[in-house]
Amino acid sequence: MRIAVIGGGQLARMLALTGLRLGMDFSFLVEKSNQREMRCIEGLGKIVLHEEGCSPRQLYQKLGMPDVITVEKEQVDIELLRELQAYCPVRPNPKALTVCSDRYQEKQWLDSLGIPTANYTYLAQAGQADQQTYPDFPLFAKSTRQAYDGRNQFVLKDQKDLTAFARAGRPGAWIVEEGIDFDREVSLIVVRSLYGDVTCYPITENIHRKGILLYSISPSPNVSAAVQATLQQYAKRLVDSLDYIGVLAIECFLKGDQVIVNELAPRVHNSGHWTASTNVSCQFENHLRAITGLKLGATSGPEVNGMLNLIGVEKPPVHLLTERSFLHWYNKIPRPGRKVGHINFRHASFSDLVEDMSIVAKEIGVDSEEMRLF
Amino acid sequence: MRIAVIGGGQLARMLALTGLRLGMDFSFLVEKSNQREMRCIEGLGKIVLHEEGCSPRQLYQKLGMPDVITVEKEQVDIELLRELQAYCPVRPNPKALTVCSDRYQEKQWLDSLGIPTANYTYLAQAGQADQQTYPDFPLFAKSTRQAYDGRNQFVLKDQKDLTAFARAGRPGAWIVEEGIDFDREVSLIVVRSLYGDVTCYPITENIHRKGILLYSISPSPNVSAAVQATLQQYAKRLVDSLDYIGVLAIECFLKGDQVIVNELAPRVHNSGHWTASTNVSCQFENHLRAITGLKLGATSGPEVNGMLNLIGVEKPPVHLLTERSFLHWYNKIPRPGRKVGHINFRHASFSDLVEDMSIVAKEIGVDSEEMRLF
Repeated sequence: MRIAVIGGGQLARMLALTGLRLGMDFSFLVEKSNQREMRCIEGLGKIVLHEEGCSPRQLYQKLGMPDVITVEKEQVDIELLRELQAYCPVRPNPKALTVCSDRYQEKQWLDSLGIPTANYTYLAQAGQADQQTYPDFPLFAKSTRQAYDGRNQFVLKDQKDLTAFARAGRPGAWIVEEGIDFDREVSLIVVRSLYGDVTCYPITENIHRKGILLYSISPSPNVSAAVQATLQQYAKRLVDSLDYIGVLAIECFLKGDQVIVNELAPRVHNSGHWTASTNVSCQFENHLRAITGLKLGATSGPEVNGMLNLIGVEKPPVHLLTERSFLHWYNKIPRPGRKVGHINFRHASFSDLVEDMSIVAKEIGVDSEEMRLF
Repeated sequence: MRIAVIGGGQLARMLALTGLRLGMDFSFLVEKSNQREMRCIEGLGKIVLHEEGCSPRQLYQKLGMPDVITVEKEQVDIELLRELQAYCPVRPNPKALTVCSDRYQEKQWLDSLGIPTANYTYLAQAGQADQQTYPDFPLFAKSTRQAYDGRNQFVLKDQKDLTAFARAGRPGAWIVEEGIDFDREVSLIVVRSLYGDVTCYPITENIHRKGILLYSISPSPNVSAAVQATLQQYAKRLVDSLDYIGVLAIECFLKGDQVIVNELAPRVHNSGHWTASTNVSCQFENHLRAITGLKLGATSGPEVNGMLNLIGVEKPPVHLLTERSFLHWYNKIPRPGRKVGHINFRHASFSDLVEDMSIVAKEIGVDSEEMRLF
């Protein structure tokens, strides 16, 4: 089975490291501008640079005539993927990728399914921002595209911020969202097979730093059965409505038992990285199982899991490994503030988990406010 | 951290697939005669062909000046490894490799530690076989070297077989062992760190077919606490006495509560493959942790595990995967009778494990007598 992945970052790396074990072959389509990122996937399969003027057929051939094409990111050339469908399946399908890659379309889709999101106003141009009426400050201005890890997102605390944002006139379409005074941030990783089977991993609770995921704990010790059931219903409604095949990540705010969907990622996701050192099939394996038409693997087990991102760390911190922790290093060139790996933790009890995790977290500079889940 | 592995088969592959995740780099030293085996490690690191006339220093440089050298097989050029120690550590050490690569030395070492093995007679030449007295038939003639997966081993059922064996005059030294009328075959995977910490995985019970491991279950449901304690004592005595660093596999016969050590493998081992889909650190990770001076990972968890070898299978049998099974494909060229991968199974109970395993075992032609552990 030959898989072509659009993208060549750490998610492509972890898909390939999982799939090689399954006897799959990989090729990767990488943008010329991302050439230096190829360290993540070096040696794991054929790397094809995306060059203009290359026809879909030529590209399909360069990619080694894959059995299926998938993505490791949402910002992809969807028109190209539509054309590539003439040669092999693209999973998840381009329609689903379109919806999930544009925050406005995503909001509309969620609205149409009756899934709550933060109230929002659509701006075809950022310059129109001060011509609208909004709920109370703070507001959040978010680009409809290329907004992840806190990029292209702005907090508007007051009228002054709003005016400044409008005047800056940043390119592209935007939405301005009400600020949600949430209790916690959680995510759900759902996977849907080629045959429509849907299964969810336990709900993961996430702590962010400046918009970047810092660590996760799963199952979240703070989520009621009611919230879990609601979120799983939303997940099923979403993947069924989009005829979605593969892994989808759903990021949410919780306010009491109220679930407000924040955003969707049509791919394996950082908040699902803990699944890779567990007694279940990890998100990478289940994504590959889904897109290649296999039965899905189990998604829940008896243990509690944690994931700690390594941000701005220079070398694989192997000296921090404990009896029940697992390092995943991405082979990226380290830069300040850059996510270069993660450590997974797995324990029989929540107290053992947080004891182990908090020692390592302290070593890599997680501060006490950020440690609030421990 | 740069690791050079002597050998390029599936064990090297699984070491590398684990170590890449840990941010380690790999190189592999492959015999020219094994060139076609390189498919297992293609893309996972630099492959160096062992050429005559290459000095140890040149070889060390070709291997990318590794931080540590390890092995994936016991039949290695030990003299070369001794010389390479001038440039970087070799783990496990050449002395330990010498002992474990020669059945006669291994027997003598076990004798010196008071660890029971089958009674044996040493033959400097196979032609002397009929000039000795032995216990009752059946006997087993085993080459002191190159004897694994049932190769270079012969059952001598009676005097006629013994005479024929002596007349055939096969090269090299041999031992002739009494046949042990054992109840079951088990193995213990032990790992010793650079700092002398020793930890063992639960005892694994193994079923062989024509000398090749067919499947394993761990922990064995048929082993008493007394046997477990005895075997762990033997393991500790062995690794301490050899100043052994890394994973060592100990294969044993059990007769009631009597433990008889059959052979040692100074490396990660097929009967430890089940550890790779568990809630503990797998044998590959613990071997790498040991030889690079890291803390060892946990070796025991709450679940029961199975491993089923894929022998003579032509393609990755992904269609057989169940919710709690995990395929490990070696990327070898399939041949009849060749081990080309394995499937791991993980369950909360022994009954769930054998139910899942026996369905897949039946599909790949395991017969009812072989299924006796289920």
